[in-house]
Amino acid sequence: MPSSDFSASLPEHFAPVALDKCYRLLNHGPTVLVSAQHDGHANVMAAAWACALDFHPPKVTVVIDKAAFTRGLIEQSGRFALQLPTVPQAALTVALGSTSAHQMPDKLQQHAVPLFASPLHGTPLVAGCAAWLECRLIPESHNQQAYDLFIGEVEGAWADVRVFANGHWQFEHAPDALRTLHYVAGGHFYATGAVVEVEN
Amino acid sequence: MPSSDFSASLPEHFAPVALDKCYRLLNHGPTVLVSAQHDGHANVMAAAWACALDFHPPKVTVVIDKAAFTRGLIEQSGRFALQLPTVPQAALTVALGSTSAHQMPDKLQQHAVPLFASPLHGTPLVAGCAAWLECRLIPESHNQQAYDLFIGEVEGAWADVRVFANGHWQFEHAPDALRTLHYVAGGHFYATGAVVEVEN
Repeated sequence: MPSSDFSASLPEHFAPVALDKCYRLLNHGPTVLVSAQHDGHANVMAAAWACALDFHPPKVTVVIDKAAFTRGLIEQSGRFALQLPTVPQAALTVALGSTSAHQMPDKLQQHAVPLFASPLHGTPLVAGCAAWLECRLIPESHNQQAYDLFIGEVEGAWADVRVFANGHWQFEHAPDALRTLHYVAGGHFYATGAVVEVEN
Repeated sequence: MPSSDFSASLPEHFAPVALDKCYRLLNHGPTVLVSAQHDGHANVMAAAWACALDFHPPKVTVVIDKAAFTRGLIEQSGRFALQLPTVPQAALTVALGSTSAHQMPDKLQQHAVPLFASPLHGTPLVAGCAAWLECRLIPESHNQQAYDLFIGEVEGAWADVRVFANGHWQFEHAPDALRTLHYVAGGHFYATGAVVEVEN
């Protein structure tokens, strides 16, 4: 898939998130979509095992199986993006997690994945998500080979301002369709739920 | 704190979880409490950055700052447990995450942390949680030093059968007080929310 296929305009509510606050996009443990491109090929997969790793500079971990087509794109390009699908994207998330571009080369077209290019480095991003983190791969060969564990430094972060603003999630004030997903197994997810505030 | 201080009986609804299903306890991205003991000292801290890493054998990652007292207990004993606090434990979770046994040696007593011993290896576990994973540290010096990243193999897993049964979370059928927590920042959490099912 050539890069020009995802040169659509930025989503309407897309806004930058300060890098010192971007760990908060992953802190609540959402399921993510992992996207990458190399040499004219783009792909997107689902991953439940992504996590923040550091604040300054912000880093993340994500577990990516050796069978994943996206893994090769990340290793070759040295870049990937994590993004947080929303409740209406649950079926898309399952589809992207259960099919591989190894077997279905036109996976993105088959699933009609709406892509646009990151304004920073052009990594393909999925429209309709709640937030996006564009990362530079920090190569760690032992972790990648022994544990399928990839580490990235976040270089750019964005969110839908209706649901993440002023450094905080606003799920309780946003449309329910912007709630993020927490995967269990099969086609079973939980949406991000009620706010719980502790005085401190 | 001597080990005998947490030799209370097992919680009423405490039941084993098959190791091939235990990744599901972490898949939805809950905030965890990390517990460990060594040489008569026990401690518990909070961590938002814990994640499943593998299925067979089940492995987990957790990020533990060099300032954490619990880190030394893990490095010395080679064991730790992750457990999932519930909504009524949100204030306890903040307290355990914002005080250190380095400055408050009687932190567990100050916060009245209800501990019992794991039936497998005796690691202190926190009563009132939704699930527990007892782990053997897989020493990875570079990850621990460079990234504060610890890897563990899960050797025993248990859950409150009211909320996790037959290999699946049952939040929608359990008391809301058994919902798990997803941390953002400050005293701000979200509870695990509504079920989202996709046909697949």
